[in-house]
Amino acid sequence: MDIKAHMQHLGMLAQGAARNLAKATLDEKNFALQCIATQLEESRSHLLKANDLDLVTAAKQDLDGALLDRLKLSNERIDEMLEGLQQVINLDDPVGAMTEIGERPSGIRLSKMRVPLGVVGIIYESRPNVTIDAASLCLKAGNACILRGGSESINSNKAIARCIHDGLADSSLPTTSVQIVDTIDRQAVGELITLTDYIDVIVPRGGKSLIARISNEARVPIIKHLDGNCHVYIDSHADPTMAIELAINAKTHRYGVCNAMESLLIADNISNRILPELCMEFTRRRVELRGCSKTRSLVGSVNAASESDWSEEYLAPILSIKVVQNVDEAIEHINRYGSKHSDSIVTQNAENAQLFIENVDSSSVMINASTRFADGFEYGLGAEVGISTDKIHARGPVGLEGLTSQKWVVHGNGQIRH
Amino acid sequence: MDIKAHMQHLGMLAQGAARNLAKATLDEKNFALQCIATQLEESRSHLLKANDLDLVTAAKQDLDGALLDRLKLSNERIDEMLEGLQQVINLDDPVGAMTEIGERPSGIRLSKMRVPLGVVGIIYESRPNVTIDAASLCLKAGNACILRGGSESINSNKAIARCIHDGLADSSLPTTSVQIVDTIDRQAVGELITLTDYIDVIVPRGGKSLIARISNEARVPIIKHLDGNCHVYIDSHADPTMAIELAINAKTHRYGVCNAMESLLIADNISNRILPELCMEFTRRRVELRGCSKTRSLVGSVNAASESDWSEEYLAPILSIKVVQNVDEAIEHINRYGSKHSDSIVTQNAENAQLFIENVDSSSVMINASTRFADGFEYGLGAEVGISTDKIHARGPVGLEGLTSQKWVVHGNGQIRH
Repeated sequence: MDIKAHMQHLGMLAQGAARNLAKATLDEKNFALQCIATQLEESRSHLLKANDLDLVTAAKQDLDGALLDRLKLSNERIDEMLEGLQQVINLDDPVGAMTEIGERPSGIRLSKMRVPLGVVGIIYESRPNVTIDAASLCLKAGNACILRGGSESINSNKAIARCIHDGLADSSLPTTSVQIVDTIDRQAVGELITLTDYIDVIVPRGGKSLIARISNEARVPIIKHLDGNCHVYIDSHADPTMAIELAINAKTHRYGVCNAMESLLIADNISNRILPELCMEFTRRRVELRGCSKTRSLVGSVNAASESDWSEEYLAPILSIKVVQNVDEAIEHINRYGSKHSDSIVTQNAENAQLFIENVDSSSVMINASTRFADGFEYGLGAEVGISTDKIHARGPVGLEGLTSQKWVVHGNGQIRH
Repeated sequence: MDIKAHMQHLGMLAQGAARNLAKATLDEKNFALQCIATQLEESRSHLLKANDLDLVTAAKQDLDGALLDRLKLSNERIDEMLEGLQQVINLDDPVGAMTEIGERPSGIRLSKMRVPLGVVGIIYESRPNVTIDAASLCLKAGNACILRGGSESINSNKAIARCIHDGLADSSLPTTSVQIVDTIDRQAVGELITLTDYIDVIVPRGGKSLIARISNEARVPIIKHLDGNCHVYIDSHADPTMAIELAINAKTHRYGVCNAMESLLIADNISNRILPELCMEFTRRRVELRGCSKTRSLVGSVNAASESDWSEEYLAPILSIKVVQNVDEAIEHINRYGSKHSDSIVTQNAENAQLFIENVDSSSVMINASTRFADGFEYGLGAEVGISTDKIHARGPVGLEGLTSQKWVVHGNGQIRH
């Protein structure tokens, strides 16, 4: 197969579909999503069978447990996909929304109209549910998409893509609105991210090496999701019970996710009241602790953290802990070592909370909430195509707004420039 | 000079300045802008002298007239810079503006806060006024910036940069908030656009070859301004007098600018009423006309357009003309050959106007207004750092909003995820 020609062909078809999708009404889009849901519902056994093929191959390749878990489909996970689809159906149509700007001295009237981006390429790993989340959000936002899942989930993704295709075929939208790259050849990714004539934005989701490669080679604009080195800072004015509960949740609710806490900061003058109990609880849950010298002087069982620990995204039951003087030092530490993902302060002091949210340069800043809330579903976006740690276009969970942009609309009655 | 080390040093200083600027109050920023204005006012003769050096060098190098014109400073152009500064001073502070999103079922309250991007790199050619426009907008948006003007305006830019530096020195903001690259070595650009550790976004402004090089080599996200192949479509329901006046203005008000009309489309059934008079007027103004066969059958003096003419950004007194059946064909032609910059319909028919604005995929879509209005000043942005033809982040003139983004703010009272 000539991969370059194949990818260009996919791009051309997607661009054609995008022109139609941009004009689709809310009803047409929702009907298509409903048709896709029906196909998924009716294809459960087929989906599970295809997924089994992937699981068998993965087991042979000695893929690790976390990856196998992400790869696995079950009836419950299909239920979740269907629920996600219903949530996307329930969202308002972002396309066409007008924002009035006002009249200018020249007499022109300015406004902005929300419009689709066009063609979105999504490159992801493992989780087959991304196929349906990404496709449904792109459709609702009026975008065509080209999806490139990981080679380990190729059979699952093909089966899901078949449902999407058949659902679209039952609707008035082009079946080329959603296309998957069904070759596992890695050259396909290289072609996809340089299709500047056809693709408007690439969203890569995956491990650091995937993102690094794509950042380096892409010529199409990308909205990237780099690592999540998330912090919880327990302020001197924290409610101790709340602080302990939040920290435990942020670290241990799930380990392999980007919005899990990887580093705990705590104000010096509250550290002796909280750290011993908190560390005991972490240890009980088999979380390895790596702390600064002050932490270790308070809790003997904590290992010594090295400089590199402050930058680490463990994605594992490991936590770094640092005692800081105050909120200013916490902010400085987070801006220096963090990854601009999601960071939370636990405090009852409004002034410290305000300092924290204004000055921590992350896509989500939180007060008295677990970092685990940084998520498209929890933010009411229906789903997410990724969590952006970039600063332009969209920060944090990327939903319908992040999949659209605004163009200027100028109303005149014959104005010319003098 | 070790250019790589030098550029990294500039990047590091800019990042430090950006952290301070993000916290600056509106009064501090406006005072700094006022100090810069004072320095410019007091340095008029120095600025003109430095500009003379550039003009002499340019004359020796046989640079073309349009470029010499863009390069030239005069007391009037310094007045315009000062006026631009006052307009930026008068703009509201974008930083810190909150948008409420609402409460989620989990009990967390969501909002978004507008924040600076951080460090902005701007790469531009010829016009020294960009130095002050870009610097003032970046400052007001709370960003540090690194400016790299063209080698032909190096002395002018250095003189303006001196005024900015001295103005900042009189204020509470860091003098490193605005830095210019004062070497004409082209390696400096290559380093600037790959400084991913220090620079958050690059805005390139200039000719196609500059943009092509930067798009290809940049590793930092870019907001790019490609070509402006702008259209005016005269609909069958156009007011003929308005149509002629608008078309003449869009083409002849200035030739070398990106928002000038490069291609005229006209509905078949109004073409014989308008084209003869309109073409006569263009010819009187020495605009070379290149038309489709229908155009040439109506106006004998029109040259034949080739396929490549439909894609051309002439930046010169040349215009392509095509007769189309209706608004649908006009939309299709613009989306196919245009550059997603600015396109206008002349019509008294609301339905055709709506079709045009909804379906033309350009950063500015206009009804009964000259494409020349696609401009930061005309849109009330105070100025612009560029006109984006990209689809993500910002489309069209990029002002304060395009120089900022929004982060999520989550207020909880102890919420954890279940």
